[in-house]
Amino acid sequence: MEALRIGMLGFGTVGRGVADLLLNHQELLAQRAGVPLRLVRIATRTPERDRGLPLGNVELTGNVNRVLDAQDLDVVVELIGGIIPARDLVGRALESGKHVITANKALIAEFGHEIFALANSRGVQLGFEAAVAGAVPVIKALRESLSGNRIDLVYGILNGTCNYILTEMREKGLPFAEVLAAAQAKGYAEADPSFDVDGIDAAHKLAILTAIAFGARLDFSHIDKEGIRHVSEVDIAWAREMGYRLKLLGMARMQEGMLEVAVRPVMVPEGSMVAAVEGVSNAVFVHGDFAGTTMYHGRGAGERPTASAVVADLMDLARDLKAGAKNRVPPLSVPVHHLRTMPIQTSTQRRGSFYIRLAVADQPGVLADITAILAKQAISIDAIHQKGRSPVEAVPLVMVTHETTESRLFMAMEEIELLDAVREPPRAIRIESALA
Amino acid sequence: MEALRIGMLGFGTVGRGVADLLLNHQELLAQRAGVPLRLVRIATRTPERDRGLPLGNVELTGNVNRVLDAQDLDVVVELIGGIIPARDLVGRALESGKHVITANKALIAEFGHEIFALANSRGVQLGFEAAVAGAVPVIKALRESLSGNRIDLVYGILNGTCNYILTEMREKGLPFAEVLAAAQAKGYAEADPSFDVDGIDAAHKLAILTAIAFGARLDFSHIDKEGIRHVSEVDIAWAREMGYRLKLLGMARMQEGMLEVAVRPVMVPEGSMVAAVEGVSNAVFVHGDFAGTTMYHGRGAGERPTASAVVADLMDLARDLKAGAKNRVPPLSVPVHHLRTMPIQTSTQRRGSFYIRLAVADQPGVLADITAILAKQAISIDAIHQKGRSPVEAVPLVMVTHETTESRLFMAMEEIELLDAVREPPRAIRIESALA
Repeated sequence: MEALRIGMLGFGTVGRGVADLLLNHQELLAQRAGVPLRLVRIATRTPERDRGLPLGNVELTGNVNRVLDAQDLDVVVELIGGIIPARDLVGRALESGKHVITANKALIAEFGHEIFALANSRGVQLGFEAAVAGAVPVIKALRESLSGNRIDLVYGILNGTCNYILTEMREKGLPFAEVLAAAQAKGYAEADPSFDVDGIDAAHKLAILTAIAFGARLDFSHIDKEGIRHVSEVDIAWAREMGYRLKLLGMARMQEGMLEVAVRPVMVPEGSMVAAVEGVSNAVFVHGDFAGTTMYHGRGAGERPTASAVVADLMDLARDLKAGAKNRVPPLSVPVHHLRTMPIQTSTQRRGSFYIRLAVADQPGVLADITAILAKQAISIDAIHQKGRSPVEAVPLVMVTHETTESRLFMAMEEIELLDAVREPPRAIRIESALA
Repeated sequence: MEALRIGMLGFGTVGRGVADLLLNHQELLAQRAGVPLRLVRIATRTPERDRGLPLGNVELTGNVNRVLDAQDLDVVVELIGGIIPARDLVGRALESGKHVITANKALIAEFGHEIFALANSRGVQLGFEAAVAGAVPVIKALRESLSGNRIDLVYGILNGTCNYILTEMREKGLPFAEVLAAAQAKGYAEADPSFDVDGIDAAHKLAILTAIAFGARLDFSHIDKEGIRHVSEVDIAWAREMGYRLKLLGMARMQEGMLEVAVRPVMVPEGSMVAAVEGVSNAVFVHGDFAGTTMYHGRGAGERPTASAVVADLMDLARDLKAGAKNRVPPLSVPVHHLRTMPIQTSTQRRGSFYIRLAVADQPGVLADITAILAKQAISIDAIHQKGRSPVEAVPLVMVTHETTESRLFMAMEEIELLDAVREPPRAIRIESALA
C-alpha cells in the first residue's frame, strides 16, 4: 500500500478538525503508520465556503457520489451525523468495498447491527471511536485493553453539555433554565437542547458501550432515559448537604445475568473520582473482574478532540492494511454471531436507595399520609428533612429511602402525587453510594 | 493458527494472576480473539509449590530451557522481573523466534533498545503494557489512540506505594517513617523500599512513557529522580494550607524542542483531577495538540490488575496472528530508526516556582540574610510564613517563590544552608499550579 486514500463526507466542525490534523501532521502520521494518510476528497453541501484552512491538493465537491463511487479511495470518513441520509451513505460506501470511519453515535446505536453485518459481508472495517466520549479512547480500551476481563459495570459522564450545566448550577446556585440559556449563548448547548438534556445523546453512547462491554446485541429502545430538565437547585443543594454530587450518569450493570441499563441523574459520593469530573469533560469507568475499576477521562466533543479520535481509527486502519491484517478486532469485540440478547432488569428487579423531593403544604396529617403510603410499599426511610412551614404555599420536603425496588418507589410516588397537600409531582433521584 | 501457545517464565504473584485469567476465561478469550489462548508450560524455581490454583494440563518445570528452546510455543511471557537473568532469557526467547510479552519495566527502561532491535530483526512482537501502570492501558493509548497527536506533556502518578504513603500522611497527619512501616506491614511496601520511595520505579515507567510520547530514544540515566523520603508532614500541612496536594509525579514536558523529564514530589492544585488520585491508584495524564488532556486511571499493581494488562498484550498478539498481521505497531510507536535523541533541559533552563522549607533558629538578621541570598539570585518571594519563635531551637520557615530557574534556586539553597541559624538542609518542592 502506497498511501491510505481518504474521502470525507461532511465538512462541518469535526470535518474541519480532521482535515486540519491530516494536513498538518502528515509527516508524523506517516512515520507512525508506516504509510502516508492522504486526504483526497471532501463532499460537502457548501464546497464554496471558506473554512480558513489551506487545503492543498484536496478536492472539494458538492456531490457525494464523487466520494461514494470513487475508485481512488480506500476509506470514507462519515461526519454528517444523524440517521438520514448518513445511514444510506454509509451503506453505499460499505457496499462499494470501502472501509468506513464514523463519529455518528446515533447511527451506530440505532442501526449498528445492520451496518456491522454489511461491513462484515464486504470484508471491510468500520471504526467509530469518535462516537463515544470524543478524544477519550474508551472503545479501544473496552475492546482491546480490557479484553481479558469479564465486565460487570460500565458507567460514565457521557454528555458534556449536561455535565457543564450541572457543574454551573452547583457552583453558582442557579436554576436549570438560567444556566441552559447561558450555555446556549456560549455555544455549549444547542438551540434545541432536548437531544442533550433529555439524555438521548448519552443513551446513544451508553448503548454502544453496553454492547461492547457485555457482548450484548445493541438495543437502544431498552435503555431508560431520564434527563436533567427536572433537576432543581434544591436537589443540588441537598446533595451537597448529604455528601453527594449530582451527575447525569449513563450506567450499565450486569447482575445475576440480568442487565440494568439507564441514563439518569444520580447522586454520587462527593469524594469519588466520578464526582471530580467537572464542566464539559467526559469520563467512563469500567469494572472488570481482573483489572478492577479503570477510568478514562477527557474532552468529549469539539473540533480537535473528536478529530483526534477519528484519526486514531484512520491510523489503526492504515497500520492494519500495511501489516496485511484483515478485520483484526470485530466492531463489538466478539463476532456478531456471538452477540447475545441480554435479559433486561424490570423495575421490580432494579433495587436502590433514593432521594425524594416533594412540594407540600404543611397541613396537619400530610407527613402521616406520606409515610403511610411509603410503609404500605415496605419502603423504609433513612432520613427526612423539611424546611419552612406554610399551610398554604408549598414547602420542600426531602426524604432518603433505604434500599427498595423502583416499582415500589414508583407506586408510592403515584399515590403521593394524588394527595391534596402535595403541590408538584414528586421527584426521585437514585443514590449510588459505592461508585469509584 | 489453531491456538496461541503460551509459555511463561516465573510463577510469582503476577504469574499466578495470568494463569488464573487464562485458565478461567478460556471461552471468553477464544470468542474475542477468534482463537484459543492456551497456557502450555510454566518455568519456575519452585514447580512443587502449591499455589491453590488448579492447573489442568499446564506443565510446570524447573528448567527455563523447556520454555526457551520449546518448539511448541508461540510466545513467552516473562514475569521474573529485574535485569538478571531476565535480560538474557528475553534475549534467548526472541532469538528463538518467539514473541515476548513482559511486565518488566526495569528491563524495558534500561535495555529496551537492545531488546526492540532484536525483536525487530527476528520479526517478532514485544508487548509491555503491564510494565507501566498495571491495568491502566496507557501504552496502547499513547501508541494507538493518541497517534494523531503531537504530545507536549505526559505526567502521572506512577508508583502506588508512594501515593499510598503520601495519602496516609495527609489523611492521618503522620510522619513518613511511621506510614512506611505500616505500609510494609500491610504488604504495600517492600522490606527494602528504596526502589519505590526513591523514585526509581516511577522513573522506569516515565522513561517508557517518554520514549513513546515523544519518539525519543530511551535514556533512563537522563531522568532526574527524587523520591519522597524527605517529604515531611510539615510540607503536607503547608500544601493543604496553600490549596495544594503533594504528589510524587513523573513528568516529561517538551518545550521549544527541549525535554524536561523528572520524577519528584510536586505540589498540585487541590481541586485538580491529579490531586483526586489517591491511595494505591496510578494515573497518567497526556496532553496532545488535538485531544487536549486525556487521563487514564486505575490499579497500578497487584496480581489481577497486572494480569489484565499481560493478557491484553496476549490478546493483541493472538488477534494480530489470526488476522495475518506482522508488527502492526512498532513498540515505541515509530520504527526504531525514527527515534531521536532529545536535548534535555539543563537546570539553568528549567523554570518553575517553588515551595522552600527551612529549619531556622529565630535569631536577629536570619530572615535578612536569607532574603538577601535569594535577592542575589534574582529570586522573588511570593509568600513567607514562620510559625513559632525560638532563638535556640529550629522552627520551620516556609517560603514560596515566583518563577525562577532550578539552577538559581539550587545556588541559593546551597548558600542558605551555610548560614549559622539554618539547622537542616533546606528542602524545595516544585509547585505546578496549572495541571489538570
